[in-house]
Amino acid sequence: MENFLDENFLLDTPTARKLFHNYAKNMPICDYHCHLSPEEIYLNKPFENISDLWLSGDHYKWRAMRSCGVDEEHCTSTASPREKFVSFANTLQYCIGNPLYHWAHIELQRYFDIYTPLSAKTAQNIYDRANKAMSGGDFKPQSLIEKSNVKFVCTTDDPIDDLKYHKLLALQDGFDCRVLPSFRPDKAMNINLDGFSDYINTLAEVSETEINSFSDVITALLKRADYFDSVGCKVSDQAFERPPYSPADDNEVDKIFQKAMNGEAVNEEEADKYKTKILLALGEKYSELGWTMEIHIGAMRNNNTLMFNKLGADTGFDSVGDCEVAKPLSRILDALNSKDKLPKTILFNLNDKDNVVLATMLGNFQSAQAQSKIQFGPAWWFLDTMDGMTNQMKYLANLGVLGKFVGMETDSRSFTSYGRHEYFRRIMCSLIGSWIEKGMYPNDEEVLEEIVKGISYNNAIEYFGF
Amino acid sequence: MENFLDENFLLDTPTARKLFHNYAKNMPICDYHCHLSPEEIYLNKPFENISDLWLSGDHYKWRAMRSCGVDEEHCTSTASPREKFVSFANTLQYCIGNPLYHWAHIELQRYFDIYTPLSAKTAQNIYDRANKAMSGGDFKPQSLIEKSNVKFVCTTDDPIDDLKYHKLLALQDGFDCRVLPSFRPDKAMNINLDGFSDYINTLAEVSETEINSFSDVITALLKRADYFDSVGCKVSDQAFERPPYSPADDNEVDKIFQKAMNGEAVNEEEADKYKTKILLALGEKYSELGWTMEIHIGAMRNNNTLMFNKLGADTGFDSVGDCEVAKPLSRILDALNSKDKLPKTILFNLNDKDNVVLATMLGNFQSAQAQSKIQFGPAWWFLDTMDGMTNQMKYLANLGVLGKFVGMETDSRSFTSYGRHEYFRRIMCSLIGSWIEKGMYPNDEEVLEEIVKGISYNNAIEYFGF
Amino acid sequence: MENFLDENFLLDTPTARKLFHNYAKNMPICDYHCHLSPEEIYLNKPFENISDLWLSGDHYKWRAMRSCGVDEEHCTSTASPREKFVSFANTLQYCIGNPLYHWAHIELQRYFDIYTPLSAKTAQNIYDRANKAMSGGDFKPQSLIEKSNVKFVCTTDDPIDDLKYHKLLALQDGFDCRVLPSFRPDKAMNINLDGFSDYINTLAEVSETEINSFSDVITALLKRADYFDSVGCKVSDQAFERPPYSPADDNEVDKIFQKAMNGEAVNEEEADKYKTKILLALGEKYSELGWTMEIHIGAMRNNNTLMFNKLGADTGFDSVGDCEVAKPLSRILDALNSKDKLPKTILFNLNDKDNVVLATMLGNFQSAQAQSKIQFGPAWWFLDTMDGMTNQMKYLANLGVLGKFVGMETDSRSFTSYGRHEYFRRIMCSLIGSWIEKGMYPNDEEVLEEIVKGISYNNAIEYFGF
Repeated sequence: MENFLDENFLLDTPTARKLFHNYAKNMPICDYHCHLSPEEIYLNKPFENISDLWLSGDHYKWRAMRSCGVDEEHCTSTASPREKFVSFANTLQYCIGNPLYHWAHIELQRYFDIYTPLSAKTAQNIYDRANKAMSGGDFKPQSLIEKSNVKFVCTTDDPIDDLKYHKLLALQDGFDCRVLPSFRPDKAMNINLDGFSDYINTLAEVSETEINSFSDVITALLKRADYFDSVGCKVSDQAFERPPYSPADDNEVDKIFQKAMNGEAVNEEEADKYKTKILLALGEKYSELGWTMEIHIGAMRNNNTLMFNKLGADTGFDSVGDCEVAKPLSRILDALNSKDKLPKTILFNLNDKDNVVLATMLGNFQSAQAQSKIQFGPAWWFLDTMDGMTNQMKYLANLGVLGKFVGMETDSRSFTSYGRHEYFRRIMCSLIGSWIEKGMYPNDEEVLEEIVKGISYNNAIEYFGF
Repeated sequence: MENFLDENFLLDTPTARKLFHNYAKNMPICDYHCHLSPEEIYLNKPFENISDLWLSGDHYKWRAMRSCGVDEEHCTSTASPREKFVSFANTLQYCIGNPLYHWAHIELQRYFDIYTPLSAKTAQNIYDRANKAMSGGDFKPQSLIEKSNVKFVCTTDDPIDDLKYHKLLALQDGFDCRVLPSFRPDKAMNINLDGFSDYINTLAEVSETEINSFSDVITALLKRADYFDSVGCKVSDQAFERPPYSPADDNEVDKIFQKAMNGEAVNEEEADKYKTKILLALGEKYSELGWTMEIHIGAMRNNNTLMFNKLGADTGFDSVGDCEVAKPLSRILDALNSKDKLPKTILFNLNDKDNVVLATMLGNFQSAQAQSKIQFGPAWWFLDTMDGMTNQMKYLANLGVLGKFVGMETDSRSFTSYGRHEYFRRIMCSLIGSWIEKGMYPNDEEVLEEIVKGISYNNAIEYFGF
Repeated sequence: MENFLDENFLLDTPTARKLFHNYAKNMPICDYHCHLSPEEIYLNKPFENISDLWLSGDHYKWRAMRSCGVDEEHCTSTASPREKFVSFANTLQYCIGNPLYHWAHIELQRYFDIYTPLSAKTAQNIYDRANKAMSGGDFKPQSLIEKSNVKFVCTTDDPIDDLKYHKLLALQDGFDCRVLPSFRPDKAMNINLDGFSDYINTLAEVSETEINSFSDVITALLKRADYFDSVGCKVSDQAFERPPYSPADDNEVDKIFQKAMNGEAVNEEEADKYKTKILLALGEKYSELGWTMEIHIGAMRNNNTLMFNKLGADTGFDSVGDCEVAKPLSRILDALNSKDKLPKTILFNLNDKDNVVLATMLGNFQSAQAQSKIQFGPAWWFLDTMDGMTNQMKYLANLGVLGKFVGMETDSRSFTSYGRHEYFRRIMCSLIGSWIEKGMYPNDEEVLEEIVKGISYNNAIEYFGF
């Protein structure tokens, strides 16, 4: 029996251990997609206690707690930090096999030097020890990032954002990590959601563009993309339950746009026509700027109306959709490619039924413009599990070229979530190690070093052009 | 090499063996969903021979036999019991890797004390030995249930059923198992299938309700739910190829209902509108009664018209559908939840592409009303295999809280199918054991005992309120 | 650590090794579906160098190279054979976990006696050694086939083909392999693709049938089927992104046909109506001829318009679709079955989300007409990987009868691709061996020999009636 989560955690063969300890472990981190707050990074305010750090914004943990019958008071509401922590500990012991279990313990070990498993029995004691560590140590955002060996962070930013904190961070001395914005134009595309017209009005203002038609929206967004580019942006990100592809003529799309601006309902087909126009124009721009286009497919959001009305978005009430994605995704990429304007692209799926669709879609549009110009994004959100990551890498290995994979990002809102990169690297080394041990790939240490370091860090740096 | 199906069958680590033998093996069984006949249980007539017990009603076995080219005479028709048994044995030896192979041998060992593998070579001999065991032993339904340590059986009953045998069984002394009805209103919902209007007329009669509109159907069903409740019912069950969600106004649904009652064709969209009304009304009622709502998704039934006309339903001609399910399922649960009337719910999928959809849907609607109020139902029917069960538990572990899982049911029509609980528990202990052995969860025996006993039996008892 | 790709490659248990070396390894090959050119087989022209053999027509290799940023010149265009080979070697070392890696090295070992791993470092040396082996040895198509122990090859042929080379090969002495045509009527069904009307005109000519209606198309195709039958054809093959099932009356379908013949656009629903008519008529014919009907589901073709215009079809720009397939597939099979005209049928899926749909569909239509009359086709194209093959066999084992499986085909365009049968057999023996070792099936050598030899070769011979 292996010890629980020791230095060889998940490294189940000698080769896995060698690959991880010699090549993967000490590589820096390029977190090319996350939801950290640049403001929090810049202000660099220390966290007060472990509940503040762990439980104040983490919908993964809230979902687990609710699944154990914990009431909302102990998740998002008025219970004390200690009570919330104990409720979480009571929950965690039933989360056998859940990545939360591993993430939490990796974080306890790496950031708090606590090696005791967290459970109902140990909750009070660990709460005290963690807080003691925090009061005695340096738990500021920038320190946590540096301690985690993170060299690049790409946050997720709205086109209307002024990127003030990114600019301030760029001017700051002595913080050894570049914090770059990502361009996330979802609100400008979600024509059928509440708040669209208000958003467009703000966009008009911020971009100093009069917006009377969908093409004015494009003009405004392109201006903002140029602005983002000037602040160092290299990545755009867009999320769709289903990728849009519904070509239509300009007049029709303008009528749809007018309807939305007048507060009239826009149906799904109409929304797709509008989104198609916007996405094609943005894709061209990304290509011209040399950016990478990330497409996150498959989240079905805000399923619980009651809780959405109480807590708003991103509070743990999203789940996985199951739309057909192959055809629209193929058509939108082909439309850009046909104009020789397909940017570097990373395709992420949230429903693992789409693994084979995405992993084969890549191959349709590869070119000499980059090493694996079209990438299969790492297992993400609900798939960010040992099984999910292993499967993503197996599909990529089977259907694409694993050795050119840009690897992991956290997609996280937490400053201690960098343990997920360690988790990913252990799993990657375990998978590759198992192939070597079984005689499925030669034990050629030189090539293996290049592959492991590449997937850990180097491929991303080269791919994004950092 | 391990021995074939010995006491450590599937228990591939020391921890798996410890968990199974110490904690899982001797727990009673709560079979909260099956298709046993309460009449047969009450009448308690012994089976005459092993073909009578095994082959007279088991479409799993018929399908396997037909796949080996066995003619219908030896499956469902006039061949002698011995001939049928030999045909099954000839088939079974090619079913390497099939759960039928394991189920049959577990049953031979546990109920017949026969440890010889069944094959073409051993068929005649085993037929004789099994029948000798049956003539010398007690192979009555109640004895088989008690021998299997089953404490609760939930049968599957139509709202028009008088539940006579459940009431008689409740009065019977000396049978140490509660046999409870489940409310299965499928026939009242299947407005687009043959026989609907006749069914509604019978429902009117049984419920002493004049039925002239869809709301009268609801009235009648609610009366029957109250009646079922009075006989101890705690569970309802409904099956859909695709969950319905199509809101419509009352007038429109009444016109659809009138069409169906007049024998006119009702299309799928119309049927969904009607079903939506009925299911929402029933869901509220289940919530008020404190029942659990089971939803079985994904069976595509009666695919072979020729054989359906010869043999009727449930004879081995169903298979797995592949509709999109995420959106309607989300909407119907949200509609109930928005009125604070979402009952405890168990979601079952038959297509494993939906594992991630269902296992994440749970989290949208958990609450403090129960521990894992929304459950991911165990692998069922075509997924009731070692791979299917392992996957269901991995998805639940990754995306929900495995420690609160209500565990296995048989979904079976056979009195010796309780070996499937043993099969499930071995697989569950193997999975959990592997995590302990790999250092992925601490070897905390106290918590592990609680989890293993919980999934085996205790969680279900608490969840259903037995 | 196991040696890289030695004689026990993938045979990870003693039982796996015994099954492979004693029973599987030396069985002949029945390649019942491939894309070899009967003309090339007959003309029997030796290959000039390994690039000619490996890289002149293999879209798998081109896709991998493009994924590593190799330009088109080194894939399909004017670079020298040596340069192309080196580009491929540079690519291959990053293809860790990809079946290409294993296929290439099995081919190097079996056909070239080269045991050095191919990589950037060894590229030049291996290029020279391989070409030396080719100039000194016999690398003609017929020799490669015989060396691979192939007894039956079913090529893929258009109904308008004159089958000249099949007839010449049948007359040839001293070539120990039967090369049979397969009937692939896709072009006659693809009413919505360019070139349809020209194709129909050629079909009319070749079949000496005046074609003025869809029923004339059927007449012409049935004549050609009779002709194919006279040349020894036993297999038909049809490919659909989604199986068609859309019944319509004859007049409507004739109008659709006229539209297409007049060069007007035909939409997807109209195309389905036409295809349904044709497929039902052909299915009946196949049944009468005793042929097997292969249905390949799920390829989404020609996604990259730019490259399609440059290079045409089958050049590496296809990927996997994700349509719903269960209902139309069930209905089309049932329609044939209802007339007692359902032929032996093999169902292939390209999207692994459909594994459970297809593996359960089989059971709806089995009969005493053949052992596993409806077969689950082996993992194919993008699924032709170790994971894909293992999964296909697990689904078949769980849901059907693995012991009656007709096993592998190459679906290949290359004369050295027969190593894929070896690869498949190793994986099959590894899977079955693991079950024996774990005590999941008795170690009954007699039955295991029958099963392993059956899946390797004997089942196919019996099933197709060769």
